[in-house]
Amino acid sequence: MKAARLHQYGKPLQVDEIDMPKAKGEGVLVRVGGSGVCHSDLHFMKGEWQKILDVKLPLTVGHETAGYVEEMGELVQGFSKGDPVAIFGGWGCGICSNCKDGQEQLCNFPRWPGLSRCDGGYAEYILVPSYRFLVKAEGLDPKDIAPLTDAGLTPYRAVKKVRNLLNPNSFVLVIGVGGLGSYAIQYFKLLSPASVITIVRNKKKANLAKNMGADHIINSSEEDVTKRINEITNSNGVDVALDIVCANDTLSTCISSMKKRGTLILVGLMGRTLEMPIMQSVINEYNVLGSLWGNYNELREVITWAKLGKVKSSNEFFSLKDVGRVIEKLESGNIVGRAVLTP
Amino acid sequence: MKAARLHQYGKPLQVDEIDMPKAKGEGVLVRVGGSGVCHSDLHFMKGEWQKILDVKLPLTVGHETAGYVEEMGELVQGFSKGDPVAIFGGWGCGICSNCKDGQEQLCNFPRWPGLSRCDGGYAEYILVPSYRFLVKAEGLDPKDIAPLTDAGLTPYRAVKKVRNLLNPNSFVLVIGVGGLGSYAIQYFKLLSPASVITIVRNKKKANLAKNMGADHIINSSEEDVTKRINEITNSNGVDVALDIVCANDTLSTCISSMKKRGTLILVGLMGRTLEMPIMQSVINEYNVLGSLWGNYNELREVITWAKLGKVKSSNEFFSLKDVGRVIEKLESGNIVGRAVLTP
Amino acid sequence: MKAARLHQYGKPLQVDEIDMPKAKGEGVLVRVGGSGVCHSDLHFMKGEWQKILDVKLPLTVGHETAGYVEEMGELVQGFSKGDPVAIFGGWGCGICSNCKDGQEQLCNFPRWPGLSRCDGGYAEYILVPSYRFLVKAEGLDPKDIAPLTDAGLTPYRAVKKVRNLLNPNSFVLVIGVGGLGSYAIQYFKLLSPASVITIVRNKKKANLAKNMGADHIINSSEEDVTKRINEITNSNGVDVALDIVCANDTLSTCISSMKKRGTLILVGLMGRTLEMPIMQSVINEYNVLGSLWGNYNELREVITWAKLGKVKSSNEFFSLKDVGRVIEKLESGNIVGRAVLTP
Amino acid sequence: MKAARLHQYGKPLQVDEIDMPKAKGEGVLVRVGGSGVCHSDLHFMKGEWQKILDVKLPLTVGHETAGYVEEMGELVQGFSKGDPVAIFGGWGCGICSNCKDGQEQLCNFPRWPGLSRCDGGYAEYILVPSYRFLVKAEGLDPKDIAPLTDAGLTPYRAVKKVRNLLNPNSFVLVIGVGGLGSYAIQYFKLLSPASVITIVRNKKKANLAKNMGADHIINSSEEDVTKRINEITNSNGVDVALDIVCANDTLSTCISSMKKRGTLILVGLMGRTLEMPIMQSVINEYNVLGSLWGNYNELREVITWAKLGKVKSSNEFFSLKDVGRVIEKLESGNIVGRAVLTP
Repeated sequence: MKAARLHQYGKPLQVDEIDMPKAKGEGVLVRVGGSGVCHSDLHFMKGEWQKILDVKLPLTVGHETAGYVEEMGELVQGFSKGDPVAIFGGWGCGICSNCKDGQEQLCNFPRWPGLSRCDGGYAEYILVPSYRFLVKAEGLDPKDIAPLTDAGLTPYRAVKKVRNLLNPNSFVLVIGVGGLGSYAIQYFKLLSPASVITIVRNKKKANLAKNMGADHIINSSEEDVTKRINEITNSNGVDVALDIVCANDTLSTCISSMKKRGTLILVGLMGRTLEMPIMQSVINEYNVLGSLWGNYNELREVITWAKLGKVKSSNEFFSLKDVGRVIEKLESGNIVGRAVLTP
Repeated sequence: MKAARLHQYGKPLQVDEIDMPKAKGEGVLVRVGGSGVCHSDLHFMKGEWQKILDVKLPLTVGHETAGYVEEMGELVQGFSKGDPVAIFGGWGCGICSNCKDGQEQLCNFPRWPGLSRCDGGYAEYILVPSYRFLVKAEGLDPKDIAPLTDAGLTPYRAVKKVRNLLNPNSFVLVIGVGGLGSYAIQYFKLLSPASVITIVRNKKKANLAKNMGADHIINSSEEDVTKRINEITNSNGVDVALDIVCANDTLSTCISSMKKRGTLILVGLMGRTLEMPIMQSVINEYNVLGSLWGNYNELREVITWAKLGKVKSSNEFFSLKDVGRVIEKLESGNIVGRAVLTP
Repeated sequence: MKAARLHQYGKPLQVDEIDMPKAKGEGVLVRVGGSGVCHSDLHFMKGEWQKILDVKLPLTVGHETAGYVEEMGELVQGFSKGDPVAIFGGWGCGICSNCKDGQEQLCNFPRWPGLSRCDGGYAEYILVPSYRFLVKAEGLDPKDIAPLTDAGLTPYRAVKKVRNLLNPNSFVLVIGVGGLGSYAIQYFKLLSPASVITIVRNKKKANLAKNMGADHIINSSEEDVTKRINEITNSNGVDVALDIVCANDTLSTCISSMKKRGTLILVGLMGRTLEMPIMQSVINEYNVLGSLWGNYNELREVITWAKLGKVKSSNEFFSLKDVGRVIEKLESGNIVGRAVLTP
Repeated sequence: MKAARLHQYGKPLQVDEIDMPKAKGEGVLVRVGGSGVCHSDLHFMKGEWQKILDVKLPLTVGHETAGYVEEMGELVQGFSKGDPVAIFGGWGCGICSNCKDGQEQLCNFPRWPGLSRCDGGYAEYILVPSYRFLVKAEGLDPKDIAPLTDAGLTPYRAVKKVRNLLNPNSFVLVIGVGGLGSYAIQYFKLLSPASVITIVRNKKKANLAKNMGADHIINSSEEDVTKRINEITNSNGVDVALDIVCANDTLSTCISSMKKRGTLILVGLMGRTLEMPIMQSVINEYNVLGSLWGNYNELREVITWAKLGKVKSSNEFFSLKDVGRVIEKLESGNIVGRAVLTP
């Protein structure tokens, strides 16, 4: 089978012909329908995460995958050949305290496909170690929903962390209207009565934000961001700021926009260091919450959203063999929404 | 009556003879039993908080006060002359959303005695705007419990924010064993089954920490802090880090000691900026919580702890007229525990 | 001024001519715009609540009132004559632990207008003991929003207690589509992604439920309720059941409809006793939550919903002098939605 | 091997000689150290739970078991032959929403050893379907800790549900001082600052309660329970009532003892129906929480308590062959604390 693999950090992927893996025990071989191309893949391929995750090269990249059940180990229950499935990527050990708490993506011994020891979804087939990492997706096309397993899941978890804080007079700030942000806006509208403010850098992003339901769109290349946020919130500031970029300037905007008892959620990985003024953080009881990916139940809910037709995606499809070109496009900022590789 | 007042930022306090205030409406005039001297007073007197709080000089300093009911306005209910009372200092407007949520210390329009427009407790008498800011303290001596209204209250709120996260296999790190920290250690032991680790700089502090119930005391002038925390926590890290100092080095120690899903609570005001590595914060879902003072019910509980005889204090008493000397001692680090002024 | 007063339990109200009360201290005299007629008033007038609340007859009935600021005591801040205001009715003592927790409607020493020692809103004017019980309602007509202070507030609190439990694959059951239920349906749709099921007894109620946004409407006079709930929920049962009636049969329907870990919220006061099977409650970890009225901040949010035009009401207006006739209509089940008395 | 099995509901157990099961895949064969005899076993053996759980007779009874790893399937990780282990009994499917939420004991498709399709621990060996249901117990003797897997776990979960509600001025009522209740008292003291009140029927139970740390012990055969609770709580009532019996009279005592916003936790299974007065439940916002067994992490914490030597047990040991006599003793109320069968 074909698989786009990383042989060396900093080098392009190679599309190799490799042996098909074999499903055993609880394992399931999934025929890939689509696999999303994520900024995290770029970080990974550059070797930035070497110290954090346990990796062995060569490795097939891709952690955002959906497909069809192809072959099942002898202990698999409840699935049939051909079932469309979304693959939950936070493969945990199943027994550490985080796994046992239902937060497998926070496992103390993670095996993330395409990012650690396990081959990912930039391939014709992917071996999933247990049917307990599959979410059924009857009626949906795997290539359409592949991005839901990360781009669509990560902001869902973030929004769920704060939905209970949001009331009809609340404001939310979302920074980063792209793969993840377009979902974040939708989830805030679906799960809360807050007004959603977004900051974008150009008209194209403004249109995307509008299409996803943002209530207030600030174009930072044309408007004074601080002034506009003050106008919109009547100088009260926002209840929640969700930073999907986490660069120095976006974080700084988030912090200076927050009202008393405001919450900042970190999802992005662009910058190196969050800088928070201490006095302001204590006096206002600011909260900062890191948020990582999502858990299995959250993915199940995201797939339900898709089945209900309530979440829009903005995907662009490419052939697996063009993976090199796609990665270049993503790096140069020329992917709108999400790029999905199909075998 | 005598009152130690600030006439100009950066200058010493003057002990003035001023008119006694008059209790009207819901107001209560309290004869001061004792008023604690807090690091915040030093910050305030230097003018560091000018922009944050609405102040009018001259002002009587002191926000940590207890005493006896002396005179009551015509709308006061439930109190009698001579009642010993602790004064809740987070005087809120009573109608903003934070006040109505029971968090008056986070009022959008705060009037903090000794720190804003209202005279504080470095005096013979203090005028409290409503009996709803008084907590009855039958059986306790006001001068002993004055520090409970801030030094004893602030860590209580912080500990309550996280107690539900702590289990018998949890570890907590407390940095800053002084006025507040000595209470923090006690509250963690009273409200949670976690093991408490503290870091101190000398033997005197080590003894205080031990006396308050700390399970593990690391003397940073003699031991390798990181190594010791790894040994104690079996390389897992701490569940909660409470920084009562919030200097650059203490924050850095807190962050590097935290386990996955760990929580850092900011209480101290020494440093200017918290610096958090973003990747680590996201991957580990770190939480950072600012924590400010406490609310009225929390003070009520703290006074109950005192009535039950379960909280130890380490107070040193001085005459109001010696306020200048006391402030010098505090600034030069020569106050162990808490200094309390008595009129 | 005119006021409809109860002189004796079990007797009709009398429209008396009484002296205007006088606003002092924090008190505000409000010119009544409208006062809703609630089932609780009927219970109260029959003397059913004599033991629960501290009452002194004669008393002006009415706890669901909005109007215009007429006169202010000397300590009132932030209001002006003529301001339209909704009156928060849970007048608490302001110092007990529930009041200090922001739950004044649960005060240990409640003074509820029209239900205890204080005169209510079936009158031309009502004296509110503090401006801190008023919510500004600029742009809204008091007679339209009077019902929001109870009929519109009570289900809001109930829904907020469980919103965080509800996901896109959740189901909610609302029983009692009338004054309160019509709001409950709307709040579930506004604050959660759950599908809302309601049970009604006739077409008129079915239409009301549909108009308010219910997803599934079961007409119990024509359909097998259990069978239909099984069909709708795919035999899983509902996550939350909100009983606004609390009669024996409605409670029984709620309990038998609940899924594992389901929550039953009690709001209605029709029946005497909830009967829950113990084995089922333990094995399934059922939760039962009593929910009383709402707090001040919740009323503020409800008024915001109204300002945003997102909540529909179904009010019928009557003159104060016709109060006797209105009460008869309500008792005989001939009020659709909410009856509002206007002076 | 020997196993005490139920062949027919309502008949005594038979000690049979049966084939040893074989560990495969993730399965682990555990040599039983001890297996606790629980009231639930009596209910089960009488056939009371036939409709609730999926059972196939004959079945080896016993769901409260600890022992030593004897044999491991080829997929087992992290365990070695001879390891002492506590067996978590809430064997879930691992993929339903409750399992994925970390609440395997609430699985939608439960397999509970000794209570459903799977053989339990009244035997020389027990086959556990996955090493993910084992908790390591180094340094502890399995026969001593067997009761911790249910009698010691169930009240732990119950106490954790409410610990955050309890403050130094809180009171807790525990009814049922036996196998579970003796742990409940200890957990409330370990995890909260509340004062614990218990009601007992005789001196022997009073001594047990005292030994476990109860603050106030009411002997219902000698004292007026209501009067005493009023005295102890200063007529305020208790914050939390934990009913480990759940008979009509105990539930009634719990409800009438609760203060405003009080919480009743149902753990016992003696009675059939909980009867709650509706008006009182709504006006006071009472909460009722069913609580079932515990989850894996909670068992891990309970074992930690045991390792720390902070939890006392009161066990009585019997030989497996005497199972019939033990069951008779339990039924006739002649077991103090917990009976444990050892092979």
